[in-house]
Amino acid sequence: MHSFPPFLLAAPDAHAFAALLLVLGALIAATKLLGELAQRVGQPAVLGELLAGILLGGSVLGVLDPADPVLHAFAEMGVLILLFEIGLHTDLRALARVGSTALTVGGVGVLLPFVGGVVVAQALGVALMPSIVIGAALTATSIGISARVLSELGQLSSPEGQVVIGAAVLDDVIGLIILSIVASLVGGAALTAGGVVGTAGPAIGFVVVAVALGSVAVPPLFRLVAGIQLTGALGVIALGFALLLAWLADAVGSAMIIGAFAAGLILHPTPQRKEIEASATQLGYFFVPIFFASVGAQVELAALASRDALLIGGALVAVGIAGKVAAGYAPWWFRGNKLLVGVAMVPRGEVGLIFAQMGLAAGVLTPSLFGALMLMVIVTTFVTPPLLGSIVKRLPPDAMAAPDQSGIDDLVAGSTRRRRGTPHG
Amino acid sequence: MHSFPPFLLAAPDAHAFAALLLVLGALIAATKLLGELAQRVGQPAVLGELLAGILLGGSVLGVLDPADPVLHAFAEMGVLILLFEIGLHTDLRALARVGSTALTVGGVGVLLPFVGGVVVAQALGVALMPSIVIGAALTATSIGISARVLSELGQLSSPEGQVVIGAAVLDDVIGLIILSIVASLVGGAALTAGGVVGTAGPAIGFVVVAVALGSVAVPPLFRLVAGIQLTGALGVIALGFALLLAWLADAVGSAMIIGAFAAGLILHPTPQRKEIEASATQLGYFFVPIFFASVGAQVELAALASRDALLIGGALVAVGIAGKVAAGYAPWWFRGNKLLVGVAMVPRGEVGLIFAQMGLAAGVLTPSLFGALMLMVIVTTFVTPPLLGSIVKRLPPDAMAAPDQSGIDDLVAGSTRRRRGTPHG
Repeated sequence: MHSFPPFLLAAPDAHAFAALLLVLGALIAATKLLGELAQRVGQPAVLGELLAGILLGGSVLGVLDPADPVLHAFAEMGVLILLFEIGLHTDLRALARVGSTALTVGGVGVLLPFVGGVVVAQALGVALMPSIVIGAALTATSIGISARVLSELGQLSSPEGQVVIGAAVLDDVIGLIILSIVASLVGGAALTAGGVVGTAGPAIGFVVVAVALGSVAVPPLFRLVAGIQLTGALGVIALGFALLLAWLADAVGSAMIIGAFAAGLILHPTPQRKEIEASATQLGYFFVPIFFASVGAQVELAALASRDALLIGGALVAVGIAGKVAAGYAPWWFRGNKLLVGVAMVPRGEVGLIFAQMGLAAGVLTPSLFGALMLMVIVTTFVTPPLLGSIVKRLPPDAMAAPDQSGIDDLVAGSTRRRRGTPHG
Repeated sequence: MHSFPPFLLAAPDAHAFAALLLVLGALIAATKLLGELAQRVGQPAVLGELLAGILLGGSVLGVLDPADPVLHAFAEMGVLILLFEIGLHTDLRALARVGSTALTVGGVGVLLPFVGGVVVAQALGVALMPSIVIGAALTATSIGISARVLSELGQLSSPEGQVVIGAAVLDDVIGLIILSIVASLVGGAALTAGGVVGTAGPAIGFVVVAVALGSVAVPPLFRLVAGIQLTGALGVIALGFALLLAWLADAVGSAMIIGAFAAGLILHPTPQRKEIEASATQLGYFFVPIFFASVGAQVELAALASRDALLIGGALVAVGIAGKVAAGYAPWWFRGNKLLVGVAMVPRGEVGLIFAQMGLAAGVLTPSLFGALMLMVIVTTFVTPPLLGSIVKRLPPDAMAAPDQSGIDDLVAGSTRRRRGTPHG
């Protein structure tokens, strides 16, 4: 059957690409179908996409390998585009207004789960080093899942939504610092104050410098770009800008998604935003579900099959949820719905998986501790969309913002009802 | 600088992906800028994208490596989306009406350059085996470049455009057969009639069977898909269908681009076409220029630096252009512009490069013969857009179709003027 040389670019292995097409096709079918089903039973579409990933991943069908370099690149494009869209949708001044609230939620939401995780693990007989890895894995919120769900519920521009975005970005920055510290500890290095500052500095500094410089330099640049008459060029150039900032963020020791988010923040006030959003939205329809399916595909159901995993995992789930929900109540002065904020911070997703895999690879975590963390990641990720949904449903009508028509809520997140000209189907 | 573990999916090498973002950013900037420049001097944008590829490729800056698996996948996605768009835009009945014309142009356009190439090479002292490889490399039109240029000129739905698309698809099928025969010859195998039929059968049969079955089964399926309320799902599912057909085409021994084209043909008559086109168009803005830049990046300017390469290459350019232009005049009954048809068949692009690289890798072609083929590919590719532009300009006004408003001409090809709300720039 495969006797033909590939009839395209002369690449090392074009039949491998053909095989990938089958995976992509299955991934598209599964994410869209399960996303639709999730919506029909009143759940956010992202839940269906995560389930599609578990289904296609190594635990069940074994079709989707999230470590495949090409699929990985598509998934990364997905999360970068998602964060770019979230940034585009975020008004820096609105974010600044909730700054102290977000700072408090983010800070407390890192501290409580970390301390709680270490204490609980120690109490259950886990040694100190794996306990620290477990505590660290409990810290960072998966901004992708939270933002996507908030967007689907029309809550991304609400005060609660802004607090969550701000706190989750902060979480990512803190998580980055913790990750580098834990990685050194796991690697056997000594912890020095200089080392911590050396890693924390660029991670925090990047956003500040990028947004400050970008807000001055970029709007005039995009006035020029708007003069380009090539159809579709503006949106793709804006995406290129986001990819370059993502690269820069990685190069200076921050996170790629922070760079993409900063690019969105910078472009938010430009008159070209609507067109940029529309373009990013369409690309997001394709790329973003690949990211969530990849997150799902990293879940190893087999790692849960031990008494210890279930016992410790259950305790970590409790700590993980309680710590973030409590963090939502930490800013006592905040007049929005504190439960909504806290619950939105619960999902750990891909970030928790990185800690778990790092710990397993370094031999610090036993397979059953790895399974426990996996359980924590699964439950916190999957419990959030339905919980948020029911909280938003019980909001007073005036707080029930309609899905934002300005872009992301309606289009980007691939969630709300599609406007159709003809009533077939 | 790179002391941080990547803060995303736990992949083998996320910093490698970060490095790729820089390449993608540079590629977007270069293709959009040079595409715009090309348009401003009255040339098709695709010319600028090809030039951007040469500039970024190994010959000049060395930034863009078209053999990188991820970039290769993006480029393949680009050509698949392009062919899917072309298929969406192609009315099968209109194509059938010009069937015998397209068949004649395609057949003669393979025969003349092949025979001409072998004869010229032999006359210039080249041995038989490399002469056959050279002749084969002269046969297949790069449908991507021709279709894109025709689309930019608003000629994709004209009778000439339909003939070119039909003939170029036929070319690809014949080219596939020739490629497999030449690959066996180069590999030292004997040529048998059974082998030729065995490869030709599926290559030709696939389109017929896929379109026949698909036209019956797919419209009801997409009536169901249209019932999905998830925003943006329809367009992405249609793309998934194209990717699956591309995979299937490859699996049965046809070409991936033929599968994507067939998917477009099948979806053309459905009521969902407009929405599917709009989605493919937006994805195309991102992916398609990556394909053309990759084609450009495969050009090795150094391979041209020999007297033999220039001499033989010059002769091959003459044969390559003359053979295809003559093929345009072969269907004497055709009342459209025969010169337009012939010139549109001239570019060899990526297909010619595959033959050249295969011959070089097998040791059949010397470096200077490889350089000669490279020159043929470069000149036939780069000479076509401006030639077509000037032919279309001299058409009588009634034949000067306005850029088609139904989709591809205006949006997909990224060529015509962007409608802007505000007149800045």
